[in-house]
Amino acid sequence: MSNTFGRILRLTTFGESHGEAVGGILDGMPAGIEIDFDYVQKQLDRRRPGQSELTTSRSEKDRVKFLSGIFEGKTLGTPIAFIIENKNVRSKDYEHLKDAFRPSHADFTYEKKYGRRDWRGGGRASARETAARVVGGALAWHLIPDIKIQAHVHAVHQLSSRKTIEELDWDFVEQNSVRTADKDLAEAFEKIIKKTKKEGDTVGGIVLCRITSIPPGLGEPVFDKLEARLASAMLSIPAAKGFEIGSGFDGSRMKGSEHNDIFLPGGTTGSNYSGGVQGGISNGMPVYFKVAFKPVATLMKPQQSIDRHGNKIIIKPKGRHDPCVLPRAVPIVEAMANLVIADFVLLQKIQK
Amino acid sequence: MSNTFGRILRLTTFGESHGEAVGGILDGMPAGIEIDFDYVQKQLDRRRPGQSELTTSRSEKDRVKFLSGIFEGKTLGTPIAFIIENKNVRSKDYEHLKDAFRPSHADFTYEKKYGRRDWRGGGRASARETAARVVGGALAWHLIPDIKIQAHVHAVHQLSSRKTIEELDWDFVEQNSVRTADKDLAEAFEKIIKKTKKEGDTVGGIVLCRITSIPPGLGEPVFDKLEARLASAMLSIPAAKGFEIGSGFDGSRMKGSEHNDIFLPGGTTGSNYSGGVQGGISNGMPVYFKVAFKPVATLMKPQQSIDRHGNKIIIKPKGRHDPCVLPRAVPIVEAMANLVIADFVLLQKIQK
Amino acid sequence: MSNTFGRILRLTTFGESHGEAVGGILDGMPAGIEIDFDYVQKQLDRRRPGQSELTTSRSEKDRVKFLSGIFEGKTLGTPIAFIIENKNVRSKDYEHLKDAFRPSHADFTYEKKYGRRDWRGGGRASARETAARVVGGALAWHLIPDIKIQAHVHAVHQLSSRKTIEELDWDFVEQNSVRTADKDLAEAFEKIIKKTKKEGDTVGGIVLCRITSIPPGLGEPVFDKLEARLASAMLSIPAAKGFEIGSGFDGSRMKGSEHNDIFLPGGTTGSNYSGGVQGGISNGMPVYFKVAFKPVATLMKPQQSIDRHGNKIIIKPKGRHDPCVLPRAVPIVEAMANLVIADFVLLQKIQK
Amino acid sequence: MSNTFGRILRLTTFGESHGEAVGGILDGMPAGIEIDFDYVQKQLDRRRPGQSELTTSRSEKDRVKFLSGIFEGKTLGTPIAFIIENKNVRSKDYEHLKDAFRPSHADFTYEKKYGRRDWRGGGRASARETAARVVGGALAWHLIPDIKIQAHVHAVHQLSSRKTIEELDWDFVEQNSVRTADKDLAEAFEKIIKKTKKEGDTVGGIVLCRITSIPPGLGEPVFDKLEARLASAMLSIPAAKGFEIGSGFDGSRMKGSEHNDIFLPGGTTGSNYSGGVQGGISNGMPVYFKVAFKPVATLMKPQQSIDRHGNKIIIKPKGRHDPCVLPRAVPIVEAMANLVIADFVLLQKIQK
Repeated sequence: MSNTFGRILRLTTFGESHGEAVGGILDGMPAGIEIDFDYVQKQLDRRRPGQSELTTSRSEKDRVKFLSGIFEGKTLGTPIAFIIENKNVRSKDYEHLKDAFRPSHADFTYEKKYGRRDWRGGGRASARETAARVVGGALAWHLIPDIKIQAHVHAVHQLSSRKTIEELDWDFVEQNSVRTADKDLAEAFEKIIKKTKKEGDTVGGIVLCRITSIPPGLGEPVFDKLEARLASAMLSIPAAKGFEIGSGFDGSRMKGSEHNDIFLPGGTTGSNYSGGVQGGISNGMPVYFKVAFKPVATLMKPQQSIDRHGNKIIIKPKGRHDPCVLPRAVPIVEAMANLVIADFVLLQKIQK
Repeated sequence: MSNTFGRILRLTTFGESHGEAVGGILDGMPAGIEIDFDYVQKQLDRRRPGQSELTTSRSEKDRVKFLSGIFEGKTLGTPIAFIIENKNVRSKDYEHLKDAFRPSHADFTYEKKYGRRDWRGGGRASARETAARVVGGALAWHLIPDIKIQAHVHAVHQLSSRKTIEELDWDFVEQNSVRTADKDLAEAFEKIIKKTKKEGDTVGGIVLCRITSIPPGLGEPVFDKLEARLASAMLSIPAAKGFEIGSGFDGSRMKGSEHNDIFLPGGTTGSNYSGGVQGGISNGMPVYFKVAFKPVATLMKPQQSIDRHGNKIIIKPKGRHDPCVLPRAVPIVEAMANLVIADFVLLQKIQK
Repeated sequence: MSNTFGRILRLTTFGESHGEAVGGILDGMPAGIEIDFDYVQKQLDRRRPGQSELTTSRSEKDRVKFLSGIFEGKTLGTPIAFIIENKNVRSKDYEHLKDAFRPSHADFTYEKKYGRRDWRGGGRASARETAARVVGGALAWHLIPDIKIQAHVHAVHQLSSRKTIEELDWDFVEQNSVRTADKDLAEAFEKIIKKTKKEGDTVGGIVLCRITSIPPGLGEPVFDKLEARLASAMLSIPAAKGFEIGSGFDGSRMKGSEHNDIFLPGGTTGSNYSGGVQGGISNGMPVYFKVAFKPVATLMKPQQSIDRHGNKIIIKPKGRHDPCVLPRAVPIVEAMANLVIADFVLLQKIQK
Repeated sequence: MSNTFGRILRLTTFGESHGEAVGGILDGMPAGIEIDFDYVQKQLDRRRPGQSELTTSRSEKDRVKFLSGIFEGKTLGTPIAFIIENKNVRSKDYEHLKDAFRPSHADFTYEKKYGRRDWRGGGRASARETAARVVGGALAWHLIPDIKIQAHVHAVHQLSSRKTIEELDWDFVEQNSVRTADKDLAEAFEKIIKKTKKEGDTVGGIVLCRITSIPPGLGEPVFDKLEARLASAMLSIPAAKGFEIGSGFDGSRMKGSEHNDIFLPGGTTGSNYSGGVQGGISNGMPVYFKVAFKPVATLMKPQQSIDRHGNKIIIKPKGRHDPCVLPRAVPIVEAMANLVIADFVLLQKIQK
């Protein structure tokens, strides 16, 4: 619950933004799997702050350190614990926020829930928590190397890609700092983010993720449908406000005769409005889904708010923040998808 | 897992569409709660087939029968088991589908997952399974009678309500067979559905749910965020393809300076783009979210498909089906929301 | 939790002794397994009251009725729900106990926990609850037909079998009403029970269970050790007060040089003080354990006690009760062991 | 599962004996609880190796380091992560065991389960893993400071205390290196252990734990009975082979008329053969139980065994080992009991 994700493959995370470290324990990994440490670190690098002009200037090197569960380069079947130290911490930047409730942040709600909170850098509510997810997802990936899970930035602010999933250039994602697979929009996306940053404002956007080479039969009926687990995984990412699979909200505006995916001999389907799932179980066609992210709540301009005593205050900007989380959200979305799919692959072994 | 939903308050459901019964066990209900049996049955009646011209003509009376956990009208603290018998079953209607894979149904995927399936009436993948959820949700409601959870039909096919949540007439929902709170659209929605039915086709749509009088502090950080649990609950409903909370996908197109909900003295906020949650925890403002439903996959016209041997076939319509699930989805969405919120209310007791 | 047992294979039970029914849902059974209904019913018959002079005269036919999860004789992979109706109910026998707290019964503790209880026949605390376990265990057995799980009555009151496990005659168990595998003691055991019954008193005893043909590798390290799960399973049986595996309490009185099980070439061990487990994982040698049962708390003679208002009362015997639970405990111990082992077999598939 | 213990209060542990560290994450601690760090460290010191002549000479300082979940000395409600570094590691001592299967150790079973293992110092199967339990239990204690949980060494090898629980001198436990509450036996116990050590042999024994000032109502009926959770907790401790609560195995040799605990006005009972639980729920009387520990498997004399290829080998003693785990088992038993009871206290809040 709460800080644990997964059924068989279970990631438990910990850590406040300005505490000693963030990290986690991944339990349920089968034994004998060779870990590609460079791959894991590379995923973490894709998430780390300070990687480009588009992200926060907090510059965490974010080296993952494994404490258990791996021996002579291979998993033992025992829990894999790992930590990422919090090094570039400037808690002073937050001292003026000690008693403040920042708008659209979790200050107020944590206080209401727990009666107290670690106000330094957002504490547990900080997106820094997602570093542990990226490590967990990168470990999970080792269980499903043949299933391809890729995300990209589909929209920034009011500009959206109009390309079909097939028209996108997935190799291009790591070649632009926005992490879009739409070559024609990378520059425009970048411009929007830079302009927004200059204004001291922030923008939201949409990440699209597709999963190919996924075998049929993954997902559990009823409450643990593939799409239900994905939705849960994605809405647990900070700033996520929406999820749709396959045709999604657009599909709700179609007729059954248009929306039904007609089977072709062999078991594939002509169209794929279903997004690769029927009845909560994968059908072997590509799974694709979108995740909507709200604009970052921390602005680089003064905002009106209240303090914990209910007094009106003006919050002045300080600290280092992202004008747009989208480029860094891409590896997080992938990590959560890896955790979901790898878990279902393990669960499906029960049927054999 | 899979057929169990909830952390403290756990609903486990069972049942195939044409088996003996559907039903469930609700575990975790505190003792001493007086059950309003009429209320529970009334919720089930709102879901039952054959309630109006807009729904399937399968006419299940759907009487819930309690087997345990309630004594002298009050809960015992022990598991509450209940069954709803499958009476109006016409399995013959499905015999021609024994070997068929219907388009955008779960026939193919169940077969791939389990190697076999109950082909009668959709088996476990039938939406009939949701009857147990409605009972579970109606029981859960008894734990949170002061929190108001209401859903309505926001859109049918391409027609959407444009009213704000405050402008809607929530008392109107049970006064029209579509179950919309938008008085100006009820008739138009109804027309769309009837016309579609006449064409042998189906339409999708969107359900909007709002939760008012919800205390701050509900929801668990990180993986069990309030929105993550709601998303999981909603995407587990058959035919659901999308979920958004608060500003949702629209919010991704806004700037931070527009989207931030400024606190007013007292702790409420001026706007409510957050949809009542920040950092995964309720802030006391109304929670609202939308769920997108695809058009029903079963058409009343011939469709091309394949059988389990991969041969091309034509599926001829038979049986009794809804042209649009939306009116019956309303109580299901409410039921799942009740289960989620009641569970969080129990979990929050740990903090006291 | 609480009413659910198992990790992958999960049995959730419900039911009060004098309610409508007892029963359960078994979730996690793989698909395609042919169910031997006679076998299941036979296990239930071994547990049922009124089967011999040694047991209570409450004569429940106890027919199990399956509601879901089985189609054309084979499992679907979906939850298997089942009920056993409570037919031979004489709640009047309990009316005088409505306000009484019977000694060493759960009346007092349920009242303290829940503020109320179903006083008819012991309610949820009645051993009738175990009927659902026997069905669950009999279903679980289908997953592990090659592993042999057998229990017998090792001791009644102060008389214990002195035979080694190998010296016992396991085929004899179902040929005597005490269910002992010690041919030389069956008659003596029977005499003790009959004499005790005549006195209106009750006796306890010990059940021994052995598991043979169990593959190595079952059990999970640390908290879910094979012996920890077995201990949990056994101590959850009403009236169980102790559990020991392998050498158990006697082993604590040995030296390491005596107790260590020396490996023979091939991987078997000379002695088997470990009881087939090392580090929580099966080693392929027979697993054996003992479960101690206290004497039944309901006596057929007057007893002093208090009522719910704290007043002294005399409880007069009424109703139908077992003088000794041991003969009926045998199939319950086996059922729980089947659930534990089948669950571990499914879990171990993850490693493949 | 497996490496996670608890329902609401969940301890997940990690760590191999000679890896970087052992440690864990405790999730579910309510917010605002002031942590007594000295108390936690003191518990760890009671478990640490090298604390007296009676224990192994591996001398780990075992300082616990907290990484999260505590802020300004009080819990945040977020997960508490902690590590204990493995410093005094001499893996060379184990190199000759790389391919050996030591008798009555987990070498063989881990290999069978996982296909590989960390052979250094016993890896995950090492009792070093229990250090994380002691920290978890010490944290859990903060939730139930008014409930008194105390364990002591009841028996060493063939010598047992004959004192009743009331006759024991609980303050004496920390005043003797054996950790017995029986003043008359401390010296004799010590002699046995020292003599055994000199012989290169090992002895087992029994730990008794009592829980006083425990409120009635703790424990969940059916599968999560208080005694079932305690049994599971205790049998998960390395080397534990038996568990009995209240009268235990002795109680199985009594008659109902002797064993029943007669209620006194006020709700206490005259005798306490039940050991403070009825129907799986505490009744307010002291809970007491015994745990049997087998003799340590590592001897300081040569033993015959096999290697992983099935060849006969002689294992020569090396390394540093306890001749008797009992003195160090005392804080581990207490820690596990603290985790169980604190968890039930949180669960019982649901009923309020």
